[in-house]
Amino acid sequence: MRIYDIILKKRDQLELTKEEIKFFIDGYTNGDIHDYQAAALLMAIFINGMNERETIDLTEAMMKSGDVIDLTAIKGIKVDKHSTGGVGDTTTLILTPMIASLGVKVAKMSGRGLGHTGGTIDKLESIKGFHTSLSVEEFIKNVNEINIAVIGQTKNIAPADKKLYSLRDVTATVDNISLIASSIMSKKLAAGSDAIVLDVKVGSGAFVKTYEDAVELGSLMVKIGEGMGRRTMAVISEMEQPLGNAIGNAIEVIEAVDVLKNSGPEDLRDLCLTLGSNLLMMANKSDTYEDAYSLLEKQLENGEALKSFKTFIEGQGGNTEFIDNYDLLPKASIIEEVFSPIEGYIESIESDDVGIASLILGAGRENLDDEIDHSAGIYILKKIGDYVTVDEPMAIFYTNKANVLDDAKNRFHSAFKFSKTPVEFPKLIKAIISKDGVTKF
Amino acid sequence: MRIYDIILKKRDQLELTKEEIKFFIDGYTNGDIHDYQAAALLMAIFINGMNERETIDLTEAMMKSGDVIDLTAIKGIKVDKHSTGGVGDTTTLILTPMIASLGVKVAKMSGRGLGHTGGTIDKLESIKGFHTSLSVEEFIKNVNEINIAVIGQTKNIAPADKKLYSLRDVTATVDNISLIASSIMSKKLAAGSDAIVLDVKVGSGAFVKTYEDAVELGSLMVKIGEGMGRRTMAVISEMEQPLGNAIGNAIEVIEAVDVLKNSGPEDLRDLCLTLGSNLLMMANKSDTYEDAYSLLEKQLENGEALKSFKTFIEGQGGNTEFIDNYDLLPKASIIEEVFSPIEGYIESIESDDVGIASLILGAGRENLDDEIDHSAGIYILKKIGDYVTVDEPMAIFYTNKANVLDDAKNRFHSAFKFSKTPVEFPKLIKAIISKDGVTKF
Repeated sequence: MRIYDIILKKRDQLELTKEEIKFFIDGYTNGDIHDYQAAALLMAIFINGMNERETIDLTEAMMKSGDVIDLTAIKGIKVDKHSTGGVGDTTTLILTPMIASLGVKVAKMSGRGLGHTGGTIDKLESIKGFHTSLSVEEFIKNVNEINIAVIGQTKNIAPADKKLYSLRDVTATVDNISLIASSIMSKKLAAGSDAIVLDVKVGSGAFVKTYEDAVELGSLMVKIGEGMGRRTMAVISEMEQPLGNAIGNAIEVIEAVDVLKNSGPEDLRDLCLTLGSNLLMMANKSDTYEDAYSLLEKQLENGEALKSFKTFIEGQGGNTEFIDNYDLLPKASIIEEVFSPIEGYIESIESDDVGIASLILGAGRENLDDEIDHSAGIYILKKIGDYVTVDEPMAIFYTNKANVLDDAKNRFHSAFKFSKTPVEFPKLIKAIISKDGVTKF
Repeated sequence: MRIYDIILKKRDQLELTKEEIKFFIDGYTNGDIHDYQAAALLMAIFINGMNERETIDLTEAMMKSGDVIDLTAIKGIKVDKHSTGGVGDTTTLILTPMIASLGVKVAKMSGRGLGHTGGTIDKLESIKGFHTSLSVEEFIKNVNEINIAVIGQTKNIAPADKKLYSLRDVTATVDNISLIASSIMSKKLAAGSDAIVLDVKVGSGAFVKTYEDAVELGSLMVKIGEGMGRRTMAVISEMEQPLGNAIGNAIEVIEAVDVLKNSGPEDLRDLCLTLGSNLLMMANKSDTYEDAYSLLEKQLENGEALKSFKTFIEGQGGNTEFIDNYDLLPKASIIEEVFSPIEGYIESIESDDVGIASLILGAGRENLDDEIDHSAGIYILKKIGDYVTVDEPMAIFYTNKANVLDDAKNRFHSAFKFSKTPVEFPKLIKAIISKDGVTKF
């Protein structure tokens, strides 16, 4: 088999076989196939497309390019969740204890943040003593005993995807549905869970801009997951503004605990309940979406979800006193109110710009080895549909660096568009996709 | 300007500007743009195409990526000829003295052969004393005084094309009309002539397989040449079998001299007269194709073309005694008749295989620094339409290596297909293309 012939086939709009796709992925991972040949093939795939079968085979080949985690030592259905990337997205911290409190197993592999998107592990490390350096035995023991554990991503999960992603990034071959879907799913499938819920963000702040594209991507990922023998569902959720109000690490932990205390922002709570309901159904804990949803609401009301969160944090060395006293979390030395430059109804909030403003304040890292300031971040007081005047604060900035405030403010302000006439708060949940089809909300 | 945005534009079927194309070519030539980015862009160009304007701009950028030869010191219209690649194609050796004998200036830059295609300089070096290492002054002086001179290609002619061609070769992006046309024309235009005739080969033995594709390629190259202010014409010629009878170096020189003596194979003679007629018209030496054709026939009949050849060879140090005594050319120690394995009418002759058989006998080089055996080669006795029996030789092999004979014979025999019913000798000239359109023959 020669990579030249594989490039030629895809160039000429022919379907690649499973063996050809595997040959490409294995050869590129081990360095036998050059960057320039992979780049030519990626562009041919980008323009001529891949069908479902090819995309599933591509996902499988990428998944098998590195470690595939074996979770069979954990009894019961193991569930996982993935988001296509949001700003201020604290769902994992709420969702996982909520469903774990109902006996569903969550053996989660999480990452750190890079650029303006936060990482679950960074957020959790705001909590004194919390660590993710569990041995495999401890990880499995925790999930078996308390239903929930989180570890860091091993270096060798889908190395083909890592290499291909870097190449796509510099060759204008990122935004292709087959390449996006296989990239996401190869990592999720390698992480070993039995059921996966996908949160596909759509809107100006997401990388998928239209509802139709989001449904296409969600449907394809569901087909890939189901095609590889895992139960898979996708939720299409609005991303015209940051989720909830907090963007940062410690302040997102506070927001998550607020929701677990049956309070907190309505949009964040609703998304967690929606994602959780799908997981409950796939874990055979509920027959209908409505049953699942009210079951989860009850876990928030009766304090069981919060209890599960507490057990989870303690299970990984964290001090949980902060739950009753948020002052025990890292605190910023500078807390500054930010005012609106204009009066009017907020029409849109560019999430990326808010994320970058938060990064500038110290909440994120630009390079993988940068230190994160867990206390830094932005608390948004006004969201889409709210009327703001120049006299009232629209956000609170948290930082330890006075010299970045102006820069962060400029970036933050540039995220907002105003309207003179009233604007409606956007509907968060747009659709749920299962193997049986799309349910529009 | 960023190469990423240029890739993105072509990926999305948008037209590239002249500046963007120049940015790509300059950046790739000097190494600022990586192979993988060039590969992605080439694949996008391959699939989505380039329009005429883009192709002309690409040609110009590649032409200007290195030296552009200045021939203004030569008085009159300078002409050049290019063939898209044939086996046993001795036309340059005949065509150039033929038109030089009528006062047309031929300042030719030629190459050496690689693989199974021969190079004009290799053929000429069969002649004792002949060399192409002229200084620029000598070269110009010769053309001014005797109308004809040939030098080797400088290293720095269209370096962008050299680099891009190597990349296309390993990324399945060779067979695109814009990329082929710009590759050929960038080198021809950099060589500095005022008028160019292109011999576009078509058929099983050429890289252009169909008449329609050949007309498309020829027309595009004519448009590029004319678009860059040079007079340009193209001849579409049949390549279902090797041209003439000789494939090698010394034996092709003999064949060329035969034609110049108003003898030699009919097909080779006809192609030379056709290409030459176009050059005469572009050099304003004839008003009509018919006039030009009979003017050239006269030069063969009256010995003026042969005289011009003699002057040319002497002008570059060659001993011309061989013209009257072919034994003075390099002679092979082994001369062997090759018989047909089957009886029948020859239906087709795969030129590439005949070229490779000749290469095996020593007539070509596989690597650029291999030595060539000028005496080696194949003289074909039977061509398409001829009836052969197993008792009569179909070819004569010339070599100095006895151990390669079997290998060469196998390859040679594999080139032939036979028919039980009579087969017509294919028509050589299919069409002539000028800026005014296509004249079908």
